[in-house]
Amino acid sequence: MQQPENSTGQDPAARILAHYLHAQAGEFLRGLRLQREAGPDSRTADEAARALCAAGRRIAATLHTFRPLLDPVWADGLRGELGWLCATLDGEHTCAARLARLLDALHRLSGGRVAPARGEAGTLTVGAARAGALLDRQLTPVRARAHSAALQALGSSRFHAVADAVALLASEVPLAPVAAAPAVEVLTPKALAAEARLERAVAALPLARAARPYNAEALVQESESQDDPWHQVRRLLRLHRYAQDVLHPEPAGPGTQAQLPYASRELDRHREAAGAAAAASGAARTPRIAPATAYALGVLHADQRHEVEAARFAFQRIWQPVAVTTAPTATTAAP
Amino acid sequence: MQQPENSTGQDPAARILAHYLHAQAGEFLRGLRLQREAGPDSRTADEAARALCAAGRRIAATLHTFRPLLDPVWADGLRGELGWLCATLDGEHTCAARLARLLDALHRLSGGRVAPARGEAGTLTVGAARAGALLDRQLTPVRARAHSAALQALGSSRFHAVADAVALLASEVPLAPVAAAPAVEVLTPKALAAEARLERAVAALPLARAARPYNAEALVQESESQDDPWHQVRRLLRLHRYAQDVLHPEPAGPGTQAQLPYASRELDRHREAAGAAAAASGAARTPRIAPATAYALGVLHADQRHEVEAARFAFQRIWQPVAVTTAPTATTAAP
Repeated sequence: MQQPENSTGQDPAARILAHYLHAQAGEFLRGLRLQREAGPDSRTADEAARALCAAGRRIAATLHTFRPLLDPVWADGLRGELGWLCATLDGEHTCAARLARLLDALHRLSGGRVAPARGEAGTLTVGAARAGALLDRQLTPVRARAHSAALQALGSSRFHAVADAVALLASEVPLAPVAAAPAVEVLTPKALAAEARLERAVAALPLARAARPYNAEALVQESESQDDPWHQVRRLLRLHRYAQDVLHPEPAGPGTQAQLPYASRELDRHREAAGAAAAASGAARTPRIAPATAYALGVLHADQRHEVEAARFAFQRIWQPVAVTTAPTATTAAP
Repeated sequence: MQQPENSTGQDPAARILAHYLHAQAGEFLRGLRLQREAGPDSRTADEAARALCAAGRRIAATLHTFRPLLDPVWADGLRGELGWLCATLDGEHTCAARLARLLDALHRLSGGRVAPARGEAGTLTVGAARAGALLDRQLTPVRARAHSAALQALGSSRFHAVADAVALLASEVPLAPVAAAPAVEVLTPKALAAEARLERAVAALPLARAARPYNAEALVQESESQDDPWHQVRRLLRLHRYAQDVLHPEPAGPGTQAQLPYASRELDRHREAAGAAAAASGAARTPRIAPATAYALGVLHADQRHEVEAARFAFQRIWQPVAVTTAPTATTAAP
C-alpha cells in the first residue's frame, strides 16, 4: 500500500480519506477476481466472500464515520448496498460456524465418548447425540438457504451495481467540499467522535461484574438481556478500529491500540456464543423431543452462556489492563 | 479454655493431647445439654446437633491423627462410633441444605420471575418450576427419613454409650506409654505427617488448570471424575487443621495458617455443589418428565458444576497466593 507522502495532520482530509478508500476498493476488487475464478462451491469461493466482506465492511464503516466529508447521497447509498452484500455473503458462514460450534460443544460436553463410560454419563451421551442430530436437522436447511441466497446475490444485477460503484471508488471518491480542509481539523474529530461513542458504550457495560470470574451471572436470564449492550460495543469497537486505520495506516506499536483486535475477537466470540446459546434453547422448545435431548440442550445452552461470560471476562482483562483486580473474596467471618 | 502453663515442645505430649480432648469433650457435653433442653423439632435441636458434630469430628480427627499416642482399641472404637453419630446427625442437614441450594439456584436461573418476561424466558421459567417440584418430591422423603434416623439415634442406647465415653474423656484420656515423651518428639511428627499427606494430595490436584478461570472444564464429564481427589483434599485439610489446633490452641496470626478455614469452606462448597449437580442429573433420569423439566435440570446441573469450578478456582487462589498467574492469553496472531 503506497503511503501518502509526508502524511501529517495538515494534509487535506481528502487525500487521506481517498487513499484509504482506494486501498479498500482494491481489496474488494481482488475479492471479486477471486470469486470469478472460483467454482461456486469451493474454498476459493469462501475466501473470495471473506475478502469481499472484509473490504466491504471497512468501506461502509468509513462512509459512516466520515460521512460529513463525503457526498451524502452517494455515501448512504453505497453503505446500504454494502451492508446488504456483506449480510448476504456472511449468512452461510455464520450458519455453518454456529452448527460447528454447537456440535463441537456437545462432543466436548459428553467427554468425546461414543459409548457411556459410567451410569451417569449415559444420560448426557445419549442426549448429546440426539441434540446434535436435532440441531443439524434445524440448522442445515438454514445454511442451505443462505448458500442459495449468496449464490443468487453474486449473480444479480444488484451485485454488479455494487461492484461497479466500488470499482469507481478505486479511482475517485465523491467528496464534500469540507474535505479539502486539513485532516486535523475535519477528519480527526470524526475519528475522535467514534472513539467517544465507543467509550460511552463501554462505560455502560457492567465491567466490574465481568472482571470477577465466576460471578454467578452466567446463567441468569439477566445475562441474556445484557447481550445487546455488548453487541453494540462490538460494532462501535469495529468502527473505532477502522477509523484509526484511516488516520494511521501504519500498524500500531505495542500498547493499547495493538490490543484492540484481540478485544474485537473476544466480542466476536461473545456474539457467536450468545447466538449458539439461543439456538440451543430454541431447539429445546421443539415439540415432542425426548427428555434426554432436552437435558443435553440445557447443558449446551449453559455451556455457551458460560463462554459468553468468559468472553466478557477476557474483554475486560484486555480493556482495563491497569485496573486493580479485586482480591480473593474472604468477606465473611472465618468458619 | 484454660491454657496449659508454659506450653512448649518439651511438655509431655500427654498433657497437650489431654488438654485438647478435655476441651472438645466439654463442647460435646454442652451440645448434649442443649439437645436435652430442646424439643425434637426446633432450632435449638439443630444447634445441638451442630455442636455435637463439630466436637465429635474434632475428637475423631484427633483419635485418628495421634492414634499411636493413645490406647488403640479405645481410640478406634470411639472414632467409629463418633463417625456413625456425626453421619446420622448430619444427614438431615445435608438433605435440607441440598434441596435449598437447588431451589435457590432454579430461582436464580429463571431470573426470579414467576411469569415469563419474554418468549425465550418462558421455557426455563416453566421448566424451572417443574424441576423444583420434582426435586422437592424426590428429596423431601430422603430428608424425612434422615430426620427420623437422627431422632432414633439420639434416643438409642448406642448414643448413650457414646455420650458416656465422651463424658469420661472430659476427665481422663486412655493414653499409650509413649505419650509421656516430650510433645516435640512424638506429637509434632504426627501433625507434620498429616500436613504431608495433605500436601501430597494437593500436589495431585490439577491446580494449574483450576487457576485459569473459564478453563472450559466445567461441564466436561472428566470434571466430575475429578471430584474425588478434591473431596480427599477436603478431608485431609480438615485433619490437618484440627491437628494444628491440638498443637497450637491460640488462634493463628495473619498468614497462611489463618487462610486455611477459608480454604476448607471452599472445599465444603465444592462438595455441596458437586452433590447438587449429581442430584440434578439424577432427577433428569426420572421417567416421563417433560422436556421443559429436563431442560431446566440440564441448566441447573451446569450451574452447579460451574460452581464446582468456581470453588476450585477460589481454593487455588487461597492455597497459592504467591503463584504467578498467567497473563491474559493473546497467544494467536492478531485477527
